[in-house]
Amino acid sequence: MAEAVYHVDGELVPANEATVSVRDRGFMYGDAAFETLRVYGGTPFRWTAHADRLERTCETLGFAGAVPPATELRARVDETLAANDMTDAYLKLSVTRGVQPGKLTPDAAVDPTVVVMVSDLPRAGSEGERVWDGPAQLRTVDTERVSDTALPSGAKTHNYLNGILARLELRETGADEAVLCSAAGTLTEGAASNLFFVQEDTLRTPTAELPLLPGVTREVVLECARDLGVPVETGRYRLSALESATELFVTNSTWEVRPVTGVDGDEFAVGPVTNRLQRAFDERVERLY
Amino acid sequence: MAEAVYHVDGELVPANEATVSVRDRGFMYGDAAFETLRVYGGTPFRWTAHADRLERTCETLGFAGAVPPATELRARVDETLAANDMTDAYLKLSVTRGVQPGKLTPDAAVDPTVVVMVSDLPRAGSEGERVWDGPAQLRTVDTERVSDTALPSGAKTHNYLNGILARLELRETGADEAVLCSAAGTLTEGAASNLFFVQEDTLRTPTAELPLLPGVTREVVLECARDLGVPVETGRYRLSALESATELFVTNSTWEVRPVTGVDGDEFAVGPVTNRLQRAFDERVERLY
Repeated sequence: MAEAVYHVDGELVPANEATVSVRDRGFMYGDAAFETLRVYGGTPFRWTAHADRLERTCETLGFAGAVPPATELRARVDETLAANDMTDAYLKLSVTRGVQPGKLTPDAAVDPTVVVMVSDLPRAGSEGERVWDGPAQLRTVDTERVSDTALPSGAKTHNYLNGILARLELRETGADEAVLCSAAGTLTEGAASNLFFVQEDTLRTPTAELPLLPGVTREVVLECARDLGVPVETGRYRLSALESATELFVTNSTWEVRPVTGVDGDEFAVGPVTNRLQRAFDERVERLY
Repeated sequence: MAEAVYHVDGELVPANEATVSVRDRGFMYGDAAFETLRVYGGTPFRWTAHADRLERTCETLGFAGAVPPATELRARVDETLAANDMTDAYLKLSVTRGVQPGKLTPDAAVDPTVVVMVSDLPRAGSEGERVWDGPAQLRTVDTERVSDTALPSGAKTHNYLNGILARLELRETGADEAVLCSAAGTLTEGAASNLFFVQEDTLRTPTAELPLLPGVTREVVLECARDLGVPVETGRYRLSALESATELFVTNSTWEVRPVTGVDGDEFAVGPVTNRLQRAFDERVERLY
């Protein structure tokens, strides 16, 4: 496969020449917003939801006014896909506060750096292969979820060490994803995914009032559940709630709906609600082909 | 002044051509350690303390084994200073986890990216000018300090949004530095500085057991206080403790010892303990000329 072409600061460049200044605040401080999304049959899945969240993150960071409008960002995404002749892809779109004078306090004048990174990722509708080899194994970790009062939880930023430290705790455990709790001991989310479980035939997921990033895929799954008539509850749950769960799965744009068959060594089967939600998700993907 | 030369990934490059890959984890996730330090008379001040903390940060991030030894990092620092013909400078040394396959979970094989950035900053011993125009004005902010259980507080990383959000709260207030409290309401530190105050002739500063980054300058000030026979207490203080403080100052490598003359509108005078500590600090700087 030929090397991909990325879109950096308004230009298409070969991936191995795609760089940002070491003075870019995205590099120096992780002072940047991003979205990762899947492209199915040439169409970025749930583009509007991703573009809206990107804008909200930039608002939280105080530079939304300087960010190109969503139509302009979409044009860069489409240009990148066309340049790579890609119809099924994994795509990451980042917007940083750009290069500024060497001070921690952000300057009001922002010339953002916009980066689009892509890689080929076949899916081809409901017949398509999934990115994971098998169901996920989860493990709870000591790393606690950063509180909303320290970093607004709904913002998807380049400050990702909290999730990385959680993932580092999984080394040599064989687990795929970490389960993070809040300081109060409430289940929040995975390092890079949202968590769902089925209990007494109800689909439950931690409420977005908790410190967690409510994913775009999480929203699609909640929509699928409503369509299917599956009762849904968002709430506050302790880890012990999983003991009486009959099904478990995690979601993100890359994994879509990924069943979980183990948490800290406790085993779970892949159940009927998970399967129905996967099929409903697949149907939404299929429409794009 | 000629454009500075930086040191990136083993090479000296003009600052405006100094870049990192957009796939570098330092850019994507802020997955990197850094130190900022002052160079006085050609010597990086408290090099060993900075090099040690950089190593501890990389240990926390799980890639200390891949980082060049301190002697090699020092060689790059010295090479950068020589290339710029600088003897008095502000210097930032960063080590990232480098470029890795596109996954959040870090790969065990690390080829770190090392970046040295410098800018001219005259000081010239005890007669030298300070970087700030006047004493600092502080303001307490709603943004809470990230807890140690979410991100180990002693690690100085490129995840700096917590401090940036705190500084954003200062916009249009005229304040220079934000005061962050822990979730429990305990005074911790500034967005980029440590906090000291004098009360009943004792120099007090929040204990390093709290979520704060114990700065190298903080340590120098504590050392100066011991030398001068000033009683020192590290502890847990609430914001209200400042009401009965007679002196206040903030410290970091750039500001050194910077007096504070206002907190949320309450005024403070620059007092004798602050002045003595500044002189003792100056003497340590003077020895390098």
